[in-house]
Amino acid sequence: MIITLKKDAQESEIQSLHKELEAKGVQIHTSIGEEFNVWGLVGDTAHIDERDILANTCVENVTRVSAPYKLANRMFHPEDTIVDVGGVKIGGNEPIVVMAGPWCVEGDEQICRIGQEVKNAGAKIIRGGAYKPRTSPYSFQGLGYEGIVDMVHAREITGLPIVSELMSADKLDEFVENVDLIQIGARNMQNFDLLKAVGRTKKPILLKRGMSATIEDWIMSAEYIMASGNPNVIFCERGIRTFERYTRNTLDLAVIPIIKEKTHLPIVIDPSHATGDWKYIESVSMAAVAAGADGLIIEVHDHPEQAWSDGAQSLKPEKFAEVVRKCTSIANAIGRDM
Amino acid sequence: MIITLKKDAQESEIQSLHKELEAKGVQIHTSIGEEFNVWGLVGDTAHIDERDILANTCVENVTRVSAPYKLANRMFHPEDTIVDVGGVKIGGNEPIVVMAGPWCVEGDEQICRIGQEVKNAGAKIIRGGAYKPRTSPYSFQGLGYEGIVDMVHAREITGLPIVSELMSADKLDEFVENVDLIQIGARNMQNFDLLKAVGRTKKPILLKRGMSATIEDWIMSAEYIMASGNPNVIFCERGIRTFERYTRNTLDLAVIPIIKEKTHLPIVIDPSHATGDWKYIESVSMAAVAAGADGLIIEVHDHPEQAWSDGAQSLKPEKFAEVVRKCTSIANAIGRDM
Amino acid sequence: MIITLKKDAQESEIQSLHKELEAKGVQIHTSIGEEFNVWGLVGDTAHIDERDILANTCVENVTRVSAPYKLANRMFHPEDTIVDVGGVKIGGNEPIVVMAGPWCVEGDEQICRIGQEVKNAGAKIIRGGAYKPRTSPYSFQGLGYEGIVDMVHAREITGLPIVSELMSADKLDEFVENVDLIQIGARNMQNFDLLKAVGRTKKPILLKRGMSATIEDWIMSAEYIMASGNPNVIFCERGIRTFERYTRNTLDLAVIPIIKEKTHLPIVIDPSHATGDWKYIESVSMAAVAAGADGLIIEVHDHPEQAWSDGAQSLKPEKFAEVVRKCTSIANAIGRDM
Amino acid sequence: MIITLKKDAQESEIQSLHKELEAKGVQIHTSIGEEFNVWGLVGDTAHIDERDILANTCVENVTRVSAPYKLANRMFHPEDTIVDVGGVKIGGNEPIVVMAGPWCVEGDEQICRIGQEVKNAGAKIIRGGAYKPRTSPYSFQGLGYEGIVDMVHAREITGLPIVSELMSADKLDEFVENVDLIQIGARNMQNFDLLKAVGRTKKPILLKRGMSATIEDWIMSAEYIMASGNPNVIFCERGIRTFERYTRNTLDLAVIPIIKEKTHLPIVIDPSHATGDWKYIESVSMAAVAAGADGLIIEVHDHPEQAWSDGAQSLKPEKFAEVVRKCTSIANAIGRDM
Repeated sequence: MIITLKKDAQESEIQSLHKELEAKGVQIHTSIGEEFNVWGLVGDTAHIDERDILANTCVENVTRVSAPYKLANRMFHPEDTIVDVGGVKIGGNEPIVVMAGPWCVEGDEQICRIGQEVKNAGAKIIRGGAYKPRTSPYSFQGLGYEGIVDMVHAREITGLPIVSELMSADKLDEFVENVDLIQIGARNMQNFDLLKAVGRTKKPILLKRGMSATIEDWIMSAEYIMASGNPNVIFCERGIRTFERYTRNTLDLAVIPIIKEKTHLPIVIDPSHATGDWKYIESVSMAAVAAGADGLIIEVHDHPEQAWSDGAQSLKPEKFAEVVRKCTSIANAIGRDM
Repeated sequence: MIITLKKDAQESEIQSLHKELEAKGVQIHTSIGEEFNVWGLVGDTAHIDERDILANTCVENVTRVSAPYKLANRMFHPEDTIVDVGGVKIGGNEPIVVMAGPWCVEGDEQICRIGQEVKNAGAKIIRGGAYKPRTSPYSFQGLGYEGIVDMVHAREITGLPIVSELMSADKLDEFVENVDLIQIGARNMQNFDLLKAVGRTKKPILLKRGMSATIEDWIMSAEYIMASGNPNVIFCERGIRTFERYTRNTLDLAVIPIIKEKTHLPIVIDPSHATGDWKYIESVSMAAVAAGADGLIIEVHDHPEQAWSDGAQSLKPEKFAEVVRKCTSIANAIGRDM
Repeated sequence: MIITLKKDAQESEIQSLHKELEAKGVQIHTSIGEEFNVWGLVGDTAHIDERDILANTCVENVTRVSAPYKLANRMFHPEDTIVDVGGVKIGGNEPIVVMAGPWCVEGDEQICRIGQEVKNAGAKIIRGGAYKPRTSPYSFQGLGYEGIVDMVHAREITGLPIVSELMSADKLDEFVENVDLIQIGARNMQNFDLLKAVGRTKKPILLKRGMSATIEDWIMSAEYIMASGNPNVIFCERGIRTFERYTRNTLDLAVIPIIKEKTHLPIVIDPSHATGDWKYIESVSMAAVAAGADGLIIEVHDHPEQAWSDGAQSLKPEKFAEVVRKCTSIANAIGRDM
Repeated sequence: MIITLKKDAQESEIQSLHKELEAKGVQIHTSIGEEFNVWGLVGDTAHIDERDILANTCVENVTRVSAPYKLANRMFHPEDTIVDVGGVKIGGNEPIVVMAGPWCVEGDEQICRIGQEVKNAGAKIIRGGAYKPRTSPYSFQGLGYEGIVDMVHAREITGLPIVSELMSADKLDEFVENVDLIQIGARNMQNFDLLKAVGRTKKPILLKRGMSATIEDWIMSAEYIMASGNPNVIFCERGIRTFERYTRNTLDLAVIPIIKEKTHLPIVIDPSHATGDWKYIESVSMAAVAAGADGLIIEVHDHPEQAWSDGAQSLKPEKFAEVVRKCTSIANAIGRDM
């Protein structure tokens, strides 16, 4: 951390800040300049907040040089982390994993049928929502526990692990017992109490990026989970909110090389929420694989027009199979399996 | 709701959608056009999601004409709602209410001292954080229950009601018992389980706008609280996230006339988080009052440079008193007390 | 400027960068740290681009301490600049100036009639577009030179100076000869050739903020005009583009204290384009005055529904008069005339 | 276009709007609803602005059903347009074209040397800036005409066509005479006079997306060029401005399938400006090819640290050659040449 000090600052204030920083266990190297003096802080600065330093009127500017995350930081953990989701490995040079299924579980028969269809088309994990975050209180909120039971049935029938979204810590036991991969949704990416709660388990966590989260915010949310004791975090990009209106969100694929440079954790892409339109899913899925994604999570429904929600962004099984085939060609071109 | 249908759509699909919509209790008026046919839906469409309709391939376009919110909607509740926070009334033509205090409670002595100072300067409610949402797991997370106890003490000493942020439903009883106004933070604006939980109480709720929430999303979150049974919602604008870097967030003051046009609920402005810099708080507070805000919530600390966090955006008590004086002049100019 | 150097960088690369920087006329103060070395640059760094420095692989990080603008910088010009627009003074403690008129000139009779109406209601400058930037090539593009002639007539009749938008340098002579205040629109804020062209005149320039311009970008565009020799720049905030859909743009009123802190130039607010809806103009105009704006520019049309464009954001003259009255009360409350 | 009318509107106002719309040559189909009446407009509505209709107080809502662009619209021109740039074909199933070269021309020797290097590595068109848009008036503004002369020399030596940015219509003749592909930069995407000027030539135009331009805005700018008579437009995505700070801009690759669905024009991707960091260019270039881009435009410099600007986002020739090889594998996997 580099702190730039005003030349005309009061000596007493500078002394007091110096003492306070040393008390936090960092060493301070001073450089005398003509317009400003500069302190270089050495040591563990992850627990020092730039904004707190700025509150001192003697400070002109603060620049963080080291990243504020440690456990997720590739610098301290150079090898890729591979997360095991009910026997399916994600990350490193493992085959690219496709997760697929309906936006929400509509009943036992539906999730088992679609689960079998996506398995046939190449999916390795079944997705399905039982607890659904809805903008409107008047919209269908998911089948709840019944939906989880239905997913467990789909797992028995297909042999594939399952992923579903956890919205509240009071259902954590239910998820730990039944679900293979616990999804934290975009709207809860900074629900820190929920992050801490899932951090106290050892379950793999699929951490979606918040709609207005910077990449650094997102890594810090992974750090919350890891700092609570759970190293099994998988990032999931699902688009950020911008002014663009032809897509539901703006998919940011540059996150793939960035997450891989700055962290050692796997990253998967959700083209369904990102675009909000089934017509664009093939292109952006292929792009995600080419950019190095470790997996895809895609919404599939055999009757999108009758889906209880979000049918507009759901692929039909036959189209999904085509997307998997095309993505596999891309994967092979970059030397990966799928 | 207006649905535009493709001319070349399959008759069977159209029939099926028609039946499904009627089953949801709305009437459909059909208009035959040259390029498109149009359905006008009459009745309660709040529970129909535009995106679900779009999943039908016969549909070209869906436009919502009526707002998706009902309980918050001024159309069905023309008079201003006035929320009573421990005896302090907010909304309508009541005096503009200033809430103030430190970003976080640092101990009994601190909150009682600052509480007294902000009271002397004109604050009517004391703010202070006990549970703090922090981007980093390594940052101070608040004093927790101890902080709530300290705030209760500050209320006893000053006689002013208190507001504090609730981050998790498992602390709800603690807040209902001790706090006069429960704040839902920006990061939890779409933590729907938390919204439902506070909706089951009768406590006044201060609902901050999410960093990337549209005004409609925000009203829908208020609707969640109201639909769960709690009509005592106060909106709080604290800036949205944009590309601008000179301020922490971009304060959107046009929300004031919009919230007042579309809903009957009070709205207060948080200039501290919006700007992130104490130097700009005076100007934007005055602007907020001029635009018709029902209140302000301002961070005050007597030693910002020693504040445990966010000192950069905290006013000193004497500067805060000046801001209150200037805002009072503005309030008087528009015929309101403060 | 503070440059952080990697400890493991090649000595030859560091030497080469050091030499290159000295050749640009700055002094370099070195500080040896444990993890990084730091250079503090002293002297005029306005012509050094942070991104160029970053291209050196020995560099970890670059932080600009001094602002990249000089002529617009209040640090080097502490007194407020007051710009004289055809006898109407804008800035400093001068009365707050209201500019008003139709979005576009529709003919001589129209602009003279509306010009007289806005004068009666308190406007001091008449606005009207002759050359119009339209998203669609099929939309009306303005009356062109005929519109300028009509505006000149309106000035003769009312005695008020006129402001109009210049879209292309090849019309500059026409504007210099006829118009009192030349507007550079949001879409041309970084049309650098146009900025240089108007910078070679002495005409007052109304520089609108680009839809995605940071405040720093905006000040740099003013710097372009000033560096070309024209010190008469007035900033005009008209909202930035965000995800919000209830307003056309998001009005950023925090720019008022920021522009006044960082520069010595006047700033006016355009509530019409910012909100895109006449219903919200009163509130945000009052807010702008309270925040310290030096002026307002408001669209007024006596028959908005017949306006050739943008009627939705135009006030009728009687409503405009009411807005001026209410803004005057606010102005008086902060000790300014209007 | 669907217009929703308020039930309580004045009959006279409705009549007047009806007449006005008919005068614009569209037919109106009326549908009587319970809460609202609806007009469906049939005919060419491209010249009707939704916002103008909204200015009528009898109107509740306006929805555009047909796209506002005609010449760029794939609906009226189903076959892919292939643009010929000095003998290199772009679009349709033509091989994917790589354009490469330095951010700016630094002299004859430099552009000829780098031009040869990028040719050897697989580039088919040489890029280089002679007139440069810079945020600061104190930054190097390009060599101007001398730079164009140098590029012409590089073309002679390599046999490759050249692309360069035109910033002002007064240099148009110079560009028409010397340059094979005229680039309109992001900052000038809505410089409508410049669009009209290049529209009056037959030269191929590379139209970059503005930093805050919606896809529809962008297509409308292409429509400007086409409506002026020039059908040879190539879109170039270079990222949009968002809150994210780890990349210079946010690259939006979903534009590829969208542009191909809605228009018949080619699209190329600029990964250099989009990410601003050479380390991420390989990944996003591969992603762009996988998503169906017709070309790439990449900054290459043999001594990035000595580049006169933007070295941080420039690839060295050997790295560039590797990117081309990897992109070629992706191209082959989707059945295209490169």
